[in-house]
Amino acid sequence: MSLTPPLASMVEAFQKLPGVGPKLAQRLAFHMLRQPNDFMDGFVQALLHAREQVHPCPVCFNLSGQSPCEICVNPHRQRQALCVVADPRDLLAVEKARTFSGLYHVLGGLISPLDGIGPEQLKIRELIRRLNPSLDETLSQQLPAGNDYPAVTEVILALPPSTEGDTTSLYLTRLLKPLEVTVSRIAFGLPVGGDLEYADSLTLSRALAGRQTL
Amino acid sequence: MSLTPPLASMVEAFQKLPGVGPKLAQRLAFHMLRQPNDFMDGFVQALLHAREQVHPCPVCFNLSGQSPCEICVNPHRQRQALCVVADPRDLLAVEKARTFSGLYHVLGGLISPLDGIGPEQLKIRELIRRLNPSLDETLSQQLPAGNDYPAVTEVILALPPSTEGDTTSLYLTRLLKPLEVTVSRIAFGLPVGGDLEYADSLTLSRALAGRQTL
Repeated sequence: MSLTPPLASMVEAFQKLPGVGPKLAQRLAFHMLRQPNDFMDGFVQALLHAREQVHPCPVCFNLSGQSPCEICVNPHRQRQALCVVADPRDLLAVEKARTFSGLYHVLGGLISPLDGIGPEQLKIRELIRRLNPSLDETLSQQLPAGNDYPAVTEVILALPPSTEGDTTSLYLTRLLKPLEVTVSRIAFGLPVGGDLEYADSLTLSRALAGRQTL
Repeated sequence: MSLTPPLASMVEAFQKLPGVGPKLAQRLAFHMLRQPNDFMDGFVQALLHAREQVHPCPVCFNLSGQSPCEICVNPHRQRQALCVVADPRDLLAVEKARTFSGLYHVLGGLISPLDGIGPEQLKIRELIRRLNPSLDETLSQQLPAGNDYPAVTEVILALPPSTEGDTTSLYLTRLLKPLEVTVSRIAFGLPVGGDLEYADSLTLSRALAGRQTL
């Protein structure tokens, strides 16, 4: 016997999610059906509510229930430094490190010709506009008035050490250099607690290339 | 910054599911929001449809979109043998082995005094009634007419090798013995492909206790 059709559809729906294999999908489906009705109602409501409320911030393209997002309107954030990330989850990872107090810009992906993603599919035009606020009148209107917004002087590229991350970093560096901002990229090398013996050779190459004079 | 509230609620909703930790919950939530609206609509529909359609079979208590379930009404299944399982996922596991062609009875759990689950919380009364169809007129009406339903002659307990599984097996054995049915329990021992060297001592004890004369 295979699963009864409505249950099979539910298992399939779970299996379409990333990181959910057939075993977990089945476990989740049976778990859902075992719970009181409130449970599934709450779950479905949380999903639909998030879809309705959460949208990309018009300034930095981070996902938020506010417009502009909590970070963009926070008066305690340093406005001269801009950290460029590929997507909102990367932004969260940087926030968790609690060492960066500037603003962000979410590209919405990385340049990847194989997947048909070129610079025009990413929020690169918007990034350039943010660095030249004079170019775009509507942008300055979106930020709360009464504050003084200093110009961005440093752009930190927090893009992953992959072919796509490297391509995007190179592209952005060339594009941003003429704008009189410092452009840097986060360091790659051995992770803290990592062992040289077990590090892969690509990571070690990066660690050697990025060596710092003491 | 923590997550924007509606997104945080969505991540929390995912995290309430079994086997979904904070990392996967966040990944699932962001994935959901990145998809076109159809995706979440389809997902939510599959869940709600399953909840509406899937119910315990009135005969064997397997979850099904039919009543009685696909197995109970299947004329090709052998009706003398009854396999007793703790829950519908265990039934699926036995079905996957493709060696049992009889019927099932889903207890809905195992006897566990610590969790306040006694025999009366399980479908044990219903099991006894199935073995004595004369006791219950409504039961015979639920099965399609026109077929001959032979009495059950063998009960196979497919309950897990845990304290609760052992307790439930012992309880059922004592209860069923007077009913003139053969009661057996599935074998426990080394899994196929398992190594003696790496087997835990409890499994090895079970394997020794269950040794078969050659």
